[in-house]
Amino acid sequence: MLKEGWLWGLGSGLLLLWLSAWLRPAQGGRVLVMPVEGSHWLSMKVLATGLAQRGHNILVLVPETNILIQSSELFRTETFPVKISKEELSTSLKGFQEGVFKRSPALMDIVIQVGRLLNFTGTQVEGCESLLYNEPLMQKLKEENFDVVLTDPFLPCGPIIATALGLPAVYFLRGIPCGLDMLASQCPSPPSYVPRFQSGSTDKMTFVERIQNFVMSGVELVLCRIMYASFDELASRYLDADVTYQEIIGRGAIWLLRYDFTFEYPRPLMPNMVLIGGINCRKSAELSAEVEEFVKGSGEHGIVVFSLGSLVSSMPKEKAAIFFKAFSMIPQRVLWRYTGEIPDDVPENVKRMKWLPQNDLLGHPKAKAFITHGGTHGIYEGICHGVPMVMLPLFGDQGDNVHRVATRGVGVVLSIHDITAETLVDALNTVINDSSYKQRMEKLSAIHNDRPMQPLDLAVYWTEFVMRHKGADHLRPAAHDLNWLQYHSLDVIGFLLFIVLIVTLATFKCCALCWRRCCRKSQKRKED
Amino acid sequence: MLKEGWLWGLGSGLLLLWLSAWLRPAQGGRVLVMPVEGSHWLSMKVLATGLAQRGHNILVLVPETNILIQSSELFRTETFPVKISKEELSTSLKGFQEGVFKRSPALMDIVIQVGRLLNFTGTQVEGCESLLYNEPLMQKLKEENFDVVLTDPFLPCGPIIATALGLPAVYFLRGIPCGLDMLASQCPSPPSYVPRFQSGSTDKMTFVERIQNFVMSGVELVLCRIMYASFDELASRYLDADVTYQEIIGRGAIWLLRYDFTFEYPRPLMPNMVLIGGINCRKSAELSAEVEEFVKGSGEHGIVVFSLGSLVSSMPKEKAAIFFKAFSMIPQRVLWRYTGEIPDDVPENVKRMKWLPQNDLLGHPKAKAFITHGGTHGIYEGICHGVPMVMLPLFGDQGDNVHRVATRGVGVVLSIHDITAETLVDALNTVINDSSYKQRMEKLSAIHNDRPMQPLDLAVYWTEFVMRHKGADHLRPAAHDLNWLQYHSLDVIGFLLFIVLIVTLATFKCCALCWRRCCRKSQKRKED
Repeated sequence: MLKEGWLWGLGSGLLLLWLSAWLRPAQGGRVLVMPVEGSHWLSMKVLATGLAQRGHNILVLVPETNILIQSSELFRTETFPVKISKEELSTSLKGFQEGVFKRSPALMDIVIQVGRLLNFTGTQVEGCESLLYNEPLMQKLKEENFDVVLTDPFLPCGPIIATALGLPAVYFLRGIPCGLDMLASQCPSPPSYVPRFQSGSTDKMTFVERIQNFVMSGVELVLCRIMYASFDELASRYLDADVTYQEIIGRGAIWLLRYDFTFEYPRPLMPNMVLIGGINCRKSAELSAEVEEFVKGSGEHGIVVFSLGSLVSSMPKEKAAIFFKAFSMIPQRVLWRYTGEIPDDVPENVKRMKWLPQNDLLGHPKAKAFITHGGTHGIYEGICHGVPMVMLPLFGDQGDNVHRVATRGVGVVLSIHDITAETLVDALNTVINDSSYKQRMEKLSAIHNDRPMQPLDLAVYWTEFVMRHKGADHLRPAAHDLNWLQYHSLDVIGFLLFIVLIVTLATFKCCALCWRRCCRKSQKRKED
Repeated sequence: MLKEGWLWGLGSGLLLLWLSAWLRPAQGGRVLVMPVEGSHWLSMKVLATGLAQRGHNILVLVPETNILIQSSELFRTETFPVKISKEELSTSLKGFQEGVFKRSPALMDIVIQVGRLLNFTGTQVEGCESLLYNEPLMQKLKEENFDVVLTDPFLPCGPIIATALGLPAVYFLRGIPCGLDMLASQCPSPPSYVPRFQSGSTDKMTFVERIQNFVMSGVELVLCRIMYASFDELASRYLDADVTYQEIIGRGAIWLLRYDFTFEYPRPLMPNMVLIGGINCRKSAELSAEVEEFVKGSGEHGIVVFSLGSLVSSMPKEKAAIFFKAFSMIPQRVLWRYTGEIPDDVPENVKRMKWLPQNDLLGHPKAKAFITHGGTHGIYEGICHGVPMVMLPLFGDQGDNVHRVATRGVGVVLSIHDITAETLVDALNTVINDSSYKQRMEKLSAIHNDRPMQPLDLAVYWTEFVMRHKGADHLRPAAHDLNWLQYHSLDVIGFLLFIVLIVTLATFKCCALCWRRCCRKSQKRKED
C-alpha cells in the first residue's frame, strides 16, 4: 500500500508539475490601456483583468473626471487632468438621462441622436487633447517602453497615442458610428445585405429597403466627414502629418470585435478581426445572501431582471409609476436597478438596487425574463444565459440591437415613450409564458456558447500575439495601399471603356473610309 | 509518509478522473467522407483520422480504381465500382507525369493546364455518376443515418450526395479552380488586390497588373461556365432540379479552408470559413534507423529533402541526370523521392526513396533546404518546420504557390524546363548559405505556428459543431438570397439613376415651359 501510495504520489507530482508549467502565466509584457468611458470600459476591463492575471504589466489611463473607470489591485492607473469638472459631467449626464425619456418628432430623432453623439465625442476629444498635450505624462509613457496599446477606437485618443509612440494597437470594440470601423479595416459591407445604422432593416431586405439602405450608406459617408472632422483635425495637428482618423485606425494590428453571429447578421470579415462577442458573460457567481433569499422566494414564478444600463438608473416619476404598476400585476419577483424617486406604494415583489449583479441574476435558474434597454452587454448576457427579453431601446445603437434580437424571436420590443402597464405586462407574459420564446432562446444560447475558445482566452491570445511579434503585419490586406477609385477598380473600368471607345471609333472611321472609297470607285466606274 | 502518500494518491486520482472526463472522446457521430483523390486525400485523411480518434463512426467512399485512398483501422471504407480500369488510370497517370516535363509554348500553357484539368474532372465526374446511380449503395448510405458529409467540393460527388441525403456538408479544401469557392460562399474578392489564378501577380499590383487581374476575373467567369458545365448538368439531372453546381456548394455549412496568411495574401473571409492551413504538419516523429543514420552522417552540412509530390516520383532520364549532377556538387546529403531510371554514377550523398517521411525529415534539425514542386502540402510543411525552399512548379496552382513563397523571401523558383546543374546548385547555395533566407523563414514559421488552436483541433471542433446543431445556419449570409444584380445593388443604382433622369427631365421641361410663357408674355407686352 505504501509503495502504491508513493507511486501515485510521484505520478501526481509530475502531472502537477507539467500542469503548472502548461498553465504558467506569460512572460510579462507591458500593456498601455486607453479606455472609453461608460459601458465600453465594463467589457474592456474584462480583458485588462485577464491580461493582468496572465502576468502582464497593465497601465490604464483614466481621466480625472470619470464615471465608471476605477483603479484595481491588478493594474496600475495613471490619472490625467481634463477640462470638464465633476459638476459639469454630472449635469451633462443628468441632462442626457432626462433626454432619453423625452419623445422627439420621428424625423428629429436621428438629428438628436447625432447631436448627442457629437456632444459626447466633443467632450471626449477635449479630454483627449488634455492628455496628448500633457507633455510630462506623454514623456513618462514613452519611457515606459510599452509593447502594445489596447484601446477602443470609438474615440481618437488611443489610436493617436499608439501612432505617436510607434506601438502596435489592439482594438477592442463593438463598432464605430458611420461604419468607420469597416471602412478603416477595408472590410467589404455590401449595402444589399449589410443593414446600415438605424436603417430598421434586417439582412433580408425588400427592394425599397435596399434602396433606403443604399442611400443611407452614402449618407453615412457624408455624416462621417462631419462627425470625424474634429478627430481628423486633432490627429493631423498632433502627429504633424496630413492624415485622417480613418487612416490612423486603419493601422491597427488586431480588431477584437464584440461580435457573434447569434446576434449580428452574417457579413464579410477581415483576417485581422477576432470575434469576441459575449466576452462579458461568465458563469454566474453566487448571489449575496440577501439577494439569494429574495430570488429563492419567487417560487415557481421566478424572477424578472430589469436594468436600463450603466448610464440610466433613474427615470421621471410618471414613467416609473407605469413600471411599478405593471410589476404589481405579475406573479414574478422583480430586481430593478433603480435609483430614482420611490412612490409610496412600491409592490412587495419589487427589489430596487443601486447596482445589479446582472450576469449572476441572469444565470440564476429562476430568471424568467430580462427587461433591458438593449445595450450589447446586456443582450449578450441574456443570450449567454438563455433568458428571453423585453426591450426598451433608449439611444445609440440600441434601436438596431433590439431589432436584431426581436427578429430572432427571442424578445419583444416596446417603446419607452408609449409604454403602459398593460403593454408591459402583456410583453412579459408573452416572453415568459409563450414557451416558443424560451425554446428559441435556448437554441440560440447553445449555439452562442458552443465556441472552440472562450472569447476572453481568444482576446488575451491575440493581444499577446501582437506583443510577441510586434504587430500582425501578415494579416494586413494590401487594400490599405489603394485609394477608393483603385479599390473598386474604377480606374481600370474607365481605362477599359476608353479603349473600347477608341477601338469602336477607329473601326467605325475605317469602315466609313472604306465605304466612301468603294462608293467613289463605283461612281467613277458609272461615270466612265 | 504513508498518510502523505495516500493524500497524494487521492488527489492525483481525482485529478486524473477529472482529466479523463475532460479529455473523453465525443459521443460518436456518424460521418460520411467523400474524398478527392491524390494529395487532396492526404490532408483530409488527417481530419478523418482525428474524427475517428474522437470516437466518431467514419465511412469513407473509395472508388475501386484509386491512387492513394486506402482503408485504415480507424475508419470503414465502402468501395464503389467505376468505369475506368486500373490499367487506364495507370496509363493516364503516366501520360500526365510525362506531360509535366514537356515544355509548351507560353500561350499554350494555360490551354494545356485547362485541358488537363478538364480531362481529370471529366474522369472524376464519370466516377461520381457511377456512385450516384449505384442505387443499392445510395440506399445503404441513406439507411446509415449520417450526421454530416465531409467532402472536398473540388469534385461534385460529395456536395451532391449531401444534398440528396438532406445532410449538412463540411467542406475541406484549399480552393476550387475559377474561384468557384469564393463565388459560392459569397465571399468578396476585389480584383484590385486579390490576385487571380495564374495571374503571376501578388496582392500589390501595378496599374497594368490590375488591368490584367480585372480582365482575368472576367475570363474566370466564362471559364467557370465551360469547366463546370458537366457538374451543373450532373447536379440538375440527378437532383431533378434546375440548379447549378455553384448553388449546390453554396449550401455548405462550414468551409474548412487550408489557408494561412503566412502563405496566402490577406483577403476578405466569410463567417463560415475556418482557416486550417498547415493541418498536415505535425511534430516530426523519429526516423527509421537507416534513414536516421544517413541523415546524421551529413554532419555540419545537413540534408536537402527533395520531392515533387504524391503524383510525380519519376522524370525523364536526361532531366534526372541534371539533378544527380547537381547533387554531386554540393556538400549536403540529399533524400529524394525518386522511382525513375537510375544512372550508373549515382553520387554517394544521394538516397533515393519510394516514399519520403517528408514531414519528419523537414522537422529534423539537419534539414537545410527543401526542393519541392510547390504543392500546398509541402509548402506548409516547409513553413511549419522553417526550411527554406527551392521550388520547381509543375502544374495546377503550383505556379501561384511558389510565387507566394518567393515574394516572402524564403525560397527560390526555378523552371523545370530550363534547369541546369549549375542553376540548381546556385539556388541551393543561396537558400542554404545566405542566412537571410533562414532568418525570414524562421520568422514566418514562428508566426505560422503561433495560433490559438491547432488546425486539426479546429477542424474537428467545427465538424462536431455541425453534427451537434445540424448545420451552421447562423453563419450563412443573406447574400445567398440575392442574384448578381441585386448583390451589387445594380438594380438600385439603375432605379436611382432613372429617378434622377426623370426629375432632371421634368425640371428641364418645367423651366422650358416657364421660359416660353414668360417670353410669350413679354412678346405680347411688346406687341401691345
